[in-house]
Amino acid sequence: MKVGFVGLGSMGSGMARNLIKAGFPLIVYNRTRKRAEALRELGAQVADTPAQAASGVDALITMLADDRAVRDVIFAPGNAIDSLRPGAVHISMSTISVALSKQLSHAHQGKKQHYVAAPVFGRPEAAAAAKLVIVAGGPSEQIERCRNLFIAMSQKIFVIGEEASNANVVKLSGNFLITTVIESLGEAFALARKSNIDVHKFLEILTDTLFNAPIYKTYGGMIADQKFEPPGFRLPLGFKDNRLVIAAAEDAAVPMPMANIIHDHFVEAMAQGMADADWAAIARIPQHNAGLS
Amino acid sequence: MKVGFVGLGSMGSGMARNLIKAGFPLIVYNRTRKRAEALRELGAQVADTPAQAASGVDALITMLADDRAVRDVIFAPGNAIDSLRPGAVHISMSTISVALSKQLSHAHQGKKQHYVAAPVFGRPEAAAAAKLVIVAGGPSEQIERCRNLFIAMSQKIFVIGEEASNANVVKLSGNFLITTVIESLGEAFALARKSNIDVHKFLEILTDTLFNAPIYKTYGGMIADQKFEPPGFRLPLGFKDNRLVIAAAEDAAVPMPMANIIHDHFVEAMAQGMADADWAAIARIPQHNAGLS
Amino acid sequence: MKVGFVGLGSMGSGMARNLIKAGFPLIVYNRTRKRAEALRELGAQVADTPAQAASGVDALITMLADDRAVRDVIFAPGNAIDSLRPGAVHISMSTISVALSKQLSHAHQGKKQHYVAAPVFGRPEAAAAAKLVIVAGGPSEQIERCRNLFIAMSQKIFVIGEEASNANVVKLSGNFLITTVIESLGEAFALARKSNIDVHKFLEILTDTLFNAPIYKTYGGMIADQKFEPPGFRLPLGFKDNRLVIAAAEDAAVPMPMANIIHDHFVEAMAQGMADADWAAIARIPQHNAGLS
Amino acid sequence: MKVGFVGLGSMGSGMARNLIKAGFPLIVYNRTRKRAEALRELGAQVADTPAQAASGVDALITMLADDRAVRDVIFAPGNAIDSLRPGAVHISMSTISVALSKQLSHAHQGKKQHYVAAPVFGRPEAAAAAKLVIVAGGPSEQIERCRNLFIAMSQKIFVIGEEASNANVVKLSGNFLITTVIESLGEAFALARKSNIDVHKFLEILTDTLFNAPIYKTYGGMIADQKFEPPGFRLPLGFKDNRLVIAAAEDAAVPMPMANIIHDHFVEAMAQGMADADWAAIARIPQHNAGLS
Repeated sequence: MKVGFVGLGSMGSGMARNLIKAGFPLIVYNRTRKRAEALRELGAQVADTPAQAASGVDALITMLADDRAVRDVIFAPGNAIDSLRPGAVHISMSTISVALSKQLSHAHQGKKQHYVAAPVFGRPEAAAAAKLVIVAGGPSEQIERCRNLFIAMSQKIFVIGEEASNANVVKLSGNFLITTVIESLGEAFALARKSNIDVHKFLEILTDTLFNAPIYKTYGGMIADQKFEPPGFRLPLGFKDNRLVIAAAEDAAVPMPMANIIHDHFVEAMAQGMADADWAAIARIPQHNAGLS
Repeated sequence: MKVGFVGLGSMGSGMARNLIKAGFPLIVYNRTRKRAEALRELGAQVADTPAQAASGVDALITMLADDRAVRDVIFAPGNAIDSLRPGAVHISMSTISVALSKQLSHAHQGKKQHYVAAPVFGRPEAAAAAKLVIVAGGPSEQIERCRNLFIAMSQKIFVIGEEASNANVVKLSGNFLITTVIESLGEAFALARKSNIDVHKFLEILTDTLFNAPIYKTYGGMIADQKFEPPGFRLPLGFKDNRLVIAAAEDAAVPMPMANIIHDHFVEAMAQGMADADWAAIARIPQHNAGLS
Repeated sequence: MKVGFVGLGSMGSGMARNLIKAGFPLIVYNRTRKRAEALRELGAQVADTPAQAASGVDALITMLADDRAVRDVIFAPGNAIDSLRPGAVHISMSTISVALSKQLSHAHQGKKQHYVAAPVFGRPEAAAAAKLVIVAGGPSEQIERCRNLFIAMSQKIFVIGEEASNANVVKLSGNFLITTVIESLGEAFALARKSNIDVHKFLEILTDTLFNAPIYKTYGGMIADQKFEPPGFRLPLGFKDNRLVIAAAEDAAVPMPMANIIHDHFVEAMAQGMADADWAAIARIPQHNAGLS
Repeated sequence: MKVGFVGLGSMGSGMARNLIKAGFPLIVYNRTRKRAEALRELGAQVADTPAQAASGVDALITMLADDRAVRDVIFAPGNAIDSLRPGAVHISMSTISVALSKQLSHAHQGKKQHYVAAPVFGRPEAAAAAKLVIVAGGPSEQIERCRNLFIAMSQKIFVIGEEASNANVVKLSGNFLITTVIESLGEAFALARKSNIDVHKFLEILTDTLFNAPIYKTYGGMIADQKFEPPGFRLPLGFKDNRLVIAAAEDAAVPMPMANIIHDHFVEAMAQGMADADWAAIARIPQHNAGLS
């Protein structure tokens, strides 16, 4: 199975490496060519354009920063969708909007190509270690066709159903739930700190009992330590995902008041110059608003 | 160590039984006497008034429904605080306001009595099985003095420090965090349901990964099943605790926007006649507001 | 018609003076006696206790800071409700909770006394100039009986109906609407200022067109000037009224999301040390949160 | 001064008629040609394409439904921006995003054309009666050049400054303030109705006193009557404007919590099938959430 891979950022590089390691012939493209060249010595072919990376492959994987980047690669004149052969499958693995995922599904169908949405949970370390969690949506026979690719990159694969874009809904909702944990801890720790409670002790009580989950340990630790740099996932990217979940909810006519609070706290974080911090730094906003430094 | 125990509701009954089982001589009081009589055959003495339950004991435990009940028992003319002897300790174990906890601390000090706040996490089953989690605040030598009582009732004991009322802050903040989980799942599931995603599958993805904690499993299951009766913890009691955390945050000058959303959803739940449901039923509000039945 | 008047703060003093001016025989009480003595030379009798001010009068007016003060004056042992004679009317004119207003109505009925709630709109200058707006609730014959008193203190009298406490609902709702104007201007001006728009020009556009009302002019001017001191109505008092409208809404099972935002902004204002500013200073919070100084 | 006019909806038709009446030679374009033909008999020329309407004129006015329509007309291949001659001015009068207004300003500059943003306040009746309020932004000599056009269409003209897009900020902020009035009345009336208060009486109290402004009278009346059809301004258009103000605030890093509440209530209104109602129908949401029918 020949694979085109477009987008070799901190996530994509690790994923592509794991595909090579698993023996898949890869042709890679990255806007900044240097990152592509790094894979050549591992055996990958390097494409000059997205179109070339899409040409002649069985599967085209995109792992790009945002909707605009995916649109450019797939739809821009002379780009990938025209090069991809009928019967091939586009696997969209980055976090994109539900609306774009629907549009891609429709566009590929029009070209007799296939489309699978397979966004991932996990940070760059997990991508490098093939420990991602993949949520896949799309026609089941296409997902089966891609399964060995997924296995090479992940520790777990969930299949959400035939509607590809529902994988994006799950991914965005998952990120939304992460932000609610961050925000709620930010608020609770603000109250604790102003009451002179040791927040590490408070966190220990939580994670030793009902809140015994990686999400509370990881983010709770960052918030208790007030250490948000260097970022694991940059705040403006988290803001982007928040925008996407609000847009998806709006299209589905679902009010999400908690997502709105988080939106505002991303806005405040930007107003206070936190663009280089981890997205967990929005937990600083309720603390700041309570007069804590 | 002779113990007075006031408040034999669904939590208190189990706790008192475990103290008896552990060999502590108990004198119990309950407004509805029948519940007290049930403990007589296990060896407890039954008091006619709170004052009598407080008279001559080393420790007086209160496990009462709300601030008003505690105030009545402790402060009403001819009641417990005047009967409790100097040197004895009042252990306040139910969920009360931070303000009342501070007031109790101060009042007992004025009588040369001691005060420990030791609210619990856990439902009636946990109380019956001595599986509660206790968060204790107060002078450390008093907490040590009470430790064997706590051991008889709980699976875990956390000591939060010398300021008794901080145990109440932790308890209320913990309940607040539980409600944020409920609300956030309510919003996420509303979006999932309107996208025709199988919410049980969605929940499985969450609890198999980052959200692998009892809190997400328990409440996620109830919300996915949309089954909120019979209640484990009645909605109006959860509403009361929400009010208490907002009051504590206000006194500490901490804005808690998520607590406000939850407040409004408790209000909406009451407007829609959900007073007899479990407090997790507030998760129905975002779903209802999205037009789901 | 002999009148007892309790509460001679910045509002009450002006109101009492206007009653004297209109020829009503007055017996006044104030906790700080000096303010009462100032009325003696205008012809008022000075009472030593609230009970004395209630004794032998046809109407007892209370104009006190909050619920607690009203409760102390009316219900404390040896106080006003026992001295007021059957058939007399208690006119409660300060901003109190809906719940207390209901309780007063019921308590007076039990003593064969009457009760009218008649809260006022207007600042101290309006009180001094007999330019208040009065909203009166209660039995219509009692309101008629009080009408000449109202005329002596106000420029306008609205009768809201037989249910006395509904006058308090209207008063609290009115204050709520004022705070929504303040907050909304705070948010809009934050956006304008960050866009380098002249906010005075912006305000002129608003008040020259759709928003041509005193409320936008008065508060808009303060917010555009960023001048919140000296206070016309102190921020903590506005906060108290916000709490009362949220409590009333909760009792009526009405979610009020805007009131919650305003609650949080009062909390933030307190956290930032604005207790001595006018309540309009909550408009600074959205500006502060946008990174404006 | 020869004028091209694109967009003859319920607003644009009235505005174009008033320009003709004032003697300006007009060439008009509308996607649905019939509406353009109606103006031919008044003396207007009818264009076959937007490009033709832009060709040879001194000023090109756009009064189109949304950003997309403006983008299509101005930027689509073979469209208006290429036909407009250097030195001519594009007057953008409909409610568009701040971002698009900035983009237009920049694009026209690149073509040595001019750009003025001049959004309007007022409903179709006001457009027909030349009673609009215009807020104009852009280079002052260009605004002066357009002044006679504005005079022909409006009762009042405000000049906001050299930055054209600030006129859009003012327009969007104005609409935001209108929605806060609608929402706040919705919440207050919910409380009033559940307290059995006559909301027309309540409204009278408001509009007779502090809230004596057209905005409270017009919308207050609709909300008290619960009559939202036929729509003066359709709910989905109001929703669009709410989205635009949130986007502008986000770009300026300004949190606007009230705009978020209104966003959610637009979403809920859509979920409940109110797309054909007036935008004031969002006032039904707090009433609905309080259990009122």
